[in-house]
Amino acid sequence: MAPPSVFLDACRRRPTAFTPIWLMRQAGRYMPEYRAMRERHGFLELCKNPQAAAEVTLQPVDRLGVDAAILFADILLVLEPLGVGLEFTKGEGPHIQRPVRGADDVARLGRVDVEASVGFVFETVRLVRKALGDRVPLIGFAGAPFTLASYLIEGGASREFLLTKRFMRAERDAWHAMLERLAGITADYLNGQIAAGAQAVQLFDSWVGALSPADYREFVLPHSRSVIQRLTPGTPVIHFGVGTATLLPSMREAGGDVIGLDWRVELGPTWERLGYDVAVQGNLDPAVLLSSTDEIRRAAKAILDGAARHPGHIFNLGHGVHQETPVENVKALVDIVHELSAR
Amino acid sequence: MAPPSVFLDACRRRPTAFTPIWLMRQAGRYMPEYRAMRERHGFLELCKNPQAAAEVTLQPVDRLGVDAAILFADILLVLEPLGVGLEFTKGEGPHIQRPVRGADDVARLGRVDVEASVGFVFETVRLVRKALGDRVPLIGFAGAPFTLASYLIEGGASREFLLTKRFMRAERDAWHAMLERLAGITADYLNGQIAAGAQAVQLFDSWVGALSPADYREFVLPHSRSVIQRLTPGTPVIHFGVGTATLLPSMREAGGDVIGLDWRVELGPTWERLGYDVAVQGNLDPAVLLSSTDEIRRAAKAILDGAARHPGHIFNLGHGVHQETPVENVKALVDIVHELSAR
Repeated sequence: MAPPSVFLDACRRRPTAFTPIWLMRQAGRYMPEYRAMRERHGFLELCKNPQAAAEVTLQPVDRLGVDAAILFADILLVLEPLGVGLEFTKGEGPHIQRPVRGADDVARLGRVDVEASVGFVFETVRLVRKALGDRVPLIGFAGAPFTLASYLIEGGASREFLLTKRFMRAERDAWHAMLERLAGITADYLNGQIAAGAQAVQLFDSWVGALSPADYREFVLPHSRSVIQRLTPGTPVIHFGVGTATLLPSMREAGGDVIGLDWRVELGPTWERLGYDVAVQGNLDPAVLLSSTDEIRRAAKAILDGAARHPGHIFNLGHGVHQETPVENVKALVDIVHELSAR
Repeated sequence: MAPPSVFLDACRRRPTAFTPIWLMRQAGRYMPEYRAMRERHGFLELCKNPQAAAEVTLQPVDRLGVDAAILFADILLVLEPLGVGLEFTKGEGPHIQRPVRGADDVARLGRVDVEASVGFVFETVRLVRKALGDRVPLIGFAGAPFTLASYLIEGGASREFLLTKRFMRAERDAWHAMLERLAGITADYLNGQIAAGAQAVQLFDSWVGALSPADYREFVLPHSRSVIQRLTPGTPVIHFGVGTATLLPSMREAGGDVIGLDWRVELGPTWERLGYDVAVQGNLDPAVLLSSTDEIRRAAKAILDGAARHPGHIFNLGHGVHQETPVENVKALVDIVHELSAR
């Protein structure tokens, strides 16, 4: 018998006593506890040490009172066995030494046995579940095929995604072959997390907002759908991207029990358009957390008013917590959402 | 008696024999002629030398057959007299030595007499008009108050606009005072360009897509409207931003004869929602210009089909030409749009 959870109930569009909240990147640099851990461990080292990663995962649960924990990991870890030379450079984020630039590079990508390559993530999931007990559920996550492919092609973070967009059109067959490969890896990875105990999973298609709606439908939708269709049934799936105002109907079509919204859309009318037969997550501009508690309250209230307590709203930011954010403001947001939404 | 122009006719929603096209950043690094000029002149030096700036403005008209010229200049030039220490660093773009960080900084901003400070831009306009004769019209442009303010506050380009967003909320009065100052400067600047001969103007609110719709309405709309309302009547105004899918109705409310669309929206349904009583400009993803002529034709056709030759469509990219773009692809796009849209 599963313990009661407002978060999981909201994922399943059941009425809840209050609106659940968790925050993307709730375990991160804005927290002194996290910074202390990072002084002792490099980023990759932290991800690969289940004891330490579990500790980081639990920090915001203890400190903030959020309604779900999210695994501490990185979406690119699962790509290490592909043999592209993944590294995390200090301050500059991920770097791929041998980026994918053509069909030949796609053909050369290594096999991925997720149990062998990211078994440490599954171990972290088991440790976190044990430590959490019945307190709050644990969310697992992975990068969606487009976002993973953009890293493989660009070689790191990008602003314009020119190489990715050129590749899509110039090498259609190789593109679809690569994304289908990535869809399989992502599904295996998420199913491994679910098997280890993750009670919901979020598919991060963080950079998909760079695309036009037509390009999304042609180059991305089939592969995101492929991931979601292969997931172990019964576990709620959150499907999220940034800058997706015009992609949301297609993302919904690709799948997911919960659609993540960024702050560029108005939650109320957007949910109405998507339909109340899907749950939504969002959507405070994380920059608001850098202002006063009054401003945070005002902005949170506007979102809760938009959701109008229809069953199936999970409060979150529209993207991750910025590292400049005062911890007390994050805590204030959690309390405000609980207070304003309480029946 | 003004010479006939398909571009100006389209701005005024008159039927035209074909769909006019010009391209944001059509004068720029992707052109060998431009790179040759830049070998002889620094960026600021080029902007401030009317003879050279006029030559750069004319290059794409001669080479590409576009239906309008756009002034070669930079949106930040007009801010030099504010005394914030504007400089252009090689490869990194604009840098503001003394950024605006509080109400005191706003109070200290210098006066701007546009004739004295950017008279060289007005001289460029006169030279270009003379050189163009009756060939194609010249578009002037300026940055919108939000985008200018974001540079003044961030001190340069930004991805997250955290300082700007914090300032808006923490210093509401100073924010509105600063934006109203910038609105006045921008209106003077554009009216100066119009007086010198610019036949249309584009207001660039390039970075406004970082905001939520509610923030746009509170912090930006009144000031963009203020600019547009002060402009010399009779000159078409194009109102443009990037990532504005959810802001377009508010941008329309702020004003403009033509609303610029980026590639993240579908032109057909978006124009229908905005209403055919406003013209639209756009909206090819500039990344498509890095693929083959067949792909360019396919993508251009989809946009033209969406516009369905309703009077008032100006073809353009959704943002500026990327410097990696082959010139022949840009030329191909211009020819394709003219060919496919010809009655």
